[in-house]
Amino acid sequence: GETVRATLFPGDGIGPEIAESVKQVFNVAGVPIEWEEHYVGTEVDPRTESFLTWESLESVRKNKVGLKGPMATPIGKGHRSLNLTLRKELGLYANVRPCNSLPGYKTRYDDVNLVTIRENTEGEYSGLEHQVVRGVVESLKIITRQASLRVAEYAFHYAKANGRERVSAIHKANIMRKTDGLFLKCCREVAEKYPEIQYEEVIIDNCCMTLVKNPGLFDVLVMPNLYGDIISDLCAGLIGGLGLTPSCNIGEGGICLAEAVHGSAPDIAGKNLANPTALMLSAVMMLRHLQFNDKADRIHNAILQTIAEGKYRTADLGGKATTSEFTNAVCDHI
Amino acid sequence: GETVRATLFPGDGIGPEIAESVKQVFNVAGVPIEWEEHYVGTEVDPRTESFLTWESLESVRKNKVGLKGPMATPIGKGHRSLNLTLRKELGLYANVRPCNSLPGYKTRYDDVNLVTIRENTEGEYSGLEHQVVRGVVESLKIITRQASLRVAEYAFHYAKANGRERVSAIHKANIMRKTDGLFLKCCREVAEKYPEIQYEEVIIDNCCMTLVKNPGLFDVLVMPNLYGDIISDLCAGLIGGLGLTPSCNIGEGGICLAEAVHGSAPDIAGKNLANPTALMLSAVMMLRHLQFNDKADRIHNAILQTIAEGKYRTADLGGKATTSEFTNAVCDHI
Ligand SMILES: CC(C)[C@H](C(=O)O)[C@@H](O)C(=O)O
Ligand SMILES: CC(C)[C@H](C(=O)O)[C@@H](O)C(=O)O
Repeated sequence: GETVRATLFPGDGIGPEIAESVKQVFNVAGVPIEWEEHYVGTEVDPRTESFLTWESLESVRKNKVGLKGPMATPIGKGHRSLNLTLRKELGLYANVRPCNSLPGYKTRYDDVNLVTIRENTEGEYSGLEHQVVRGVVESLKIITRQASLRVAEYAFHYAKANGRERVSAIHKANIMRKTDGLFLKCCREVAEKYPEIQYEEVIIDNCCMTLVKNPGLFDVLVMPNLYGDIISDLCAGLIGGLGLTPSCNIGEGGICLAEAVHGSAPDIAGKNLANPTALMLSAVMMLRHLQFNDKADRIHNAILQTIAEGKYRTADLGGKATTSEFTNAVCDHI
Repeated sequence: GETVRATLFPGDGIGPEIAESVKQVFNVAGVPIEWEEHYVGTEVDPRTESFLTWESLESVRKNKVGLKGPMATPIGKGHRSLNLTLRKELGLYANVRPCNSLPGYKTRYDDVNLVTIRENTEGEYSGLEHQVVRGVVESLKIITRQASLRVAEYAFHYAKANGRERVSAIHKANIMRKTDGLFLKCCREVAEKYPEIQYEEVIIDNCCMTLVKNPGLFDVLVMPNLYGDIISDLCAGLIGGLGLTPSCNIGEGGICLAEAVHGSAPDIAGKNLANPTALMLSAVMMLRHLQFNDKADRIHNAILQTIAEGKYRTADLGGKATTSEFTNAVCDHI
């Protein structure tokens, strides 16, 4: 087989350590990937508190596949979040987060097996806000037919390609009749092209209630940006948190940028304490996208086995293992 | 003691039956309330599918206290939701939902003891939406200093009056810096006047994840309208659903309109199958507002005991009891 070039953004805080873990695992598994590593993060330029080069973006555009660690989004700082900038620059229109209970890692739920697909470019994230008069401010939520169709298409395509049975569109169209109404209209149009996939519409408040009562009722969920932000984190909570859930962003021109969506955890950065699971599982999504299915399966199983055995667990999961101990254990299982 | 006049809107669907249950319980407990009953609902006028008279509104304005059953909000129908109309007309600025695990009714959580306080008049519910060009629509989220201060004041007042320790403001100010930023600013201002109450700010996605992992970490939560809609339903899910969670709306001029926030369940309406618990518990909130604390305690305990014993449970809770059987059991415990 040929070697594939993939971009790696280790990111801030614990990013570099967990990126090392992924590299180690890929080496042991013999994954034919050559990393093109770029620093994108908020810890370099003291003036802008942000560092994002044109070369970094071009690397993803060229390779069309990459892996991204956490990047800090300071609240109330002047610059726009790097995460948002990447979404915008690379046209990352769909954020895909499979959420599956991990055998052996007990939470209150053991029946979670769903995927959230989040519109990732518009909606409440438009950045359009202003003060109308003193004490009155407004934010604009923008929904377009184009972005809604695109993410709906992706959701149904994903459902079909992955043997999923149902797509649920999540909305609040009883209140935001025009914006969420347009989103639903687009989902319905796409649904008609996939008669083999069931389609339903669920109001977001009801969806959240059902998710905590009975997540087994859901399969693939597709939704506007902010609902996706909220619901995907809620779902991560069901199985143990963001340290355990993979994600990948689908972008214009077939880009796939896999991403650990947890924070950069500056408090434990550099201490060999971070949990690399989310980034490893995200890397597995990247491998599946590249159709390196054998490698993906082997690594995926090794991660699941290591977690199931429970001998090496990092502190966030209540254990005492270091990042390297966990990573070595995964390598041993490969 | 004197007799107090209170407004009763039984509402649509199962509303009349569960309102009957409350009346029966109040009678047995000897609550000195005289009901002023008005029909407000969507099932009367076939032309507008809505029925709301000036007299109904005046009744609440005059009595300043009332109880409200479910009213249907049809998706995509021409008229504005009656629930929203009531909030607007009566200036119901805070929706208060205590959420407590019910002893004896097992869910995945047994440690829930929190209160959500939702701004109830603006935000994403502004109703301001329009098409910009074909295929591009926008909704306006409006946050005002006045409404934010008002709900924050109420939240801290509530926390203090109810012996609560902490208020968490829920937001997405890392994205909606101006709108949610203003909301937070107002919360901070009010927090300074209550040094005895702890104050923290939690991003909504993180809040939802924490709620499903460890709801015991929260106490009083205050937030803009849509986040309140989402999170209060999520919380209801933790303890078993909207059929078990009370709510009350605080309005201008000291109005207290208690409300069951579940749906009108047209499929089981009139069949003596509905669960009156949420409306009963809401009525208890109304009694506490009136400082009928002894009556409130007696009724509250009777409801909790009936549920804990588990002999009479309605179908939504997996039982076979009718509405009347459950209601009679509560009366027997008074
Ligand atoms: C960090 C923040 C800007 C981001 C978001 O809101 O999208 C994060 O919560 C996420 O889900 O990736
Ligand atoms: C019925 C609907 C308009 C309403 C809302 O969105 O506020 C409901 O979900 C609620 O929470 O009372």
